[in-house]
Amino acid sequence: MAHNTEQLTLYTAKICPYAHRVEIALAEAKASFKSYQIDLQNKPEWYAPQVNPASKVPAVAYGGPDVPPETPSPKSTKIAESLVLVEFVADLYPESGLLPKDPVLRAKARFFIEVVSSKFSPSYVGFVLRGESYDNVLKGVEAIQELLPESGKYAIGDEFTIADAAFTPFFARLKIAAENEFGKYELGSGRKLLDALESPKYAKFNAYAGRLLERPSVKATLDEDSIRSTYGVRFART
Amino acid sequence: MAHNTEQLTLYTAKICPYAHRVEIALAEAKASFKSYQIDLQNKPEWYAPQVNPASKVPAVAYGGPDVPPETPSPKSTKIAESLVLVEFVADLYPESGLLPKDPVLRAKARFFIEVVSSKFSPSYVGFVLRGESYDNVLKGVEAIQELLPESGKYAIGDEFTIADAAFTPFFARLKIAAENEFGKYELGSGRKLLDALESPKYAKFNAYAGRLLERPSVKATLDEDSIRSTYGVRFART
Repeated sequence: MAHNTEQLTLYTAKICPYAHRVEIALAEAKASFKSYQIDLQNKPEWYAPQVNPASKVPAVAYGGPDVPPETPSPKSTKIAESLVLVEFVADLYPESGLLPKDPVLRAKARFFIEVVSSKFSPSYVGFVLRGESYDNVLKGVEAIQELLPESGKYAIGDEFTIADAAFTPFFARLKIAAENEFGKYELGSGRKLLDALESPKYAKFNAYAGRLLERPSVKATLDEDSIRSTYGVRFART
Repeated sequence: MAHNTEQLTLYTAKICPYAHRVEIALAEAKASFKSYQIDLQNKPEWYAPQVNPASKVPAVAYGGPDVPPETPSPKSTKIAESLVLVEFVADLYPESGLLPKDPVLRAKARFFIEVVSSKFSPSYVGFVLRGESYDNVLKGVEAIQELLPESGKYAIGDEFTIADAAFTPFFARLKIAAENEFGKYELGSGRKLLDALESPKYAKFNAYAGRLLERPSVKATLDEDSIRSTYGVRFART
């Protein structure tokens, strides 16, 4: 199935929603690749100079000789930025369906991602990382729900695309954070958010979000225990 | 050349760098399309409800019946967001070369755009629209210059791509603003920025920027008189 014969090494971290996007895309593409966990609290010295000058995950080393991830070859191409990388995976594996062929559907997938970036992910960051009200999360949910097709299981129709890969990691982390009251917000706001989301007015969003979490590529790449453990330390309420 | 037979109507405004990106892409593609100027200070009532709920340009109405732009058909697909639209034009006109076929080159074009969005265009906005120091503009220029290929005329090589289409409108407006001291910054800072840019350390950037402004698609779509006139009113120093 995969026509890509170059080596691909993904530098990632289980906690990171941006890196998770690329893991989902690679799982959808049934890609053969090497994965290397970067400890974000203690990044290896070689990472910034040899892989990603911005020192962030995700990043990919593509092509060049087949070397251990810890000793990246100068001959491989280094690529960073999660949205660049999900498009890259879709381009490498067109048969994955991550991006449909129809230009209009491709535009819809990219517009969906734009709304995730401008409305949903900032609301997650505001609530969990900065302790702001969950009202913006509900507005983000509404913005996503408005884009969902009248029929169809996923963001732009019946096929799972880069739009779903870009959204899922943020929703999954929001859910874990709220269920466990992990966040800078007031204790109890996690439960309140989850209760508010149970309103019938969010039924369409919830059906969509439920399908995302059942998607095999998501189940295979979402390490809930690891996220709970990291959030538990970061947001310890003592 | 063009295999696209659906009608395409672009809603645009000469002053807007985001809309200009799409005009350049359409010119590169030699696309046949209708263009409609939106007065951003006095938007038509039908624009938000019938074309773009965010009430911004650019937006495209694609497909459906061939109707006057002022009476958009509900049967056309409405697409917004400049970066979504340049990708859309590249998808509609693959023979335009706006996006190369090679996945690695496509990723390089998209990463270049990411740097334009995160480093260059914010520095333009900060300097011209908010009157901040031009130091960040020079940092933005350095970030762009670092990405330029060792050889090759444009952002990622010898072909003009969506990366160039995304960058050019911001550079062109920055140049017009600085040459005329249009901006919220201190009088004289425009000249100082232009002088600083003449340093040999920016030679590679300047050669690139010069080629962009000579590109036929840019010359055909950049209305300097109109931009000078609008900036002259907006940034009048009285």
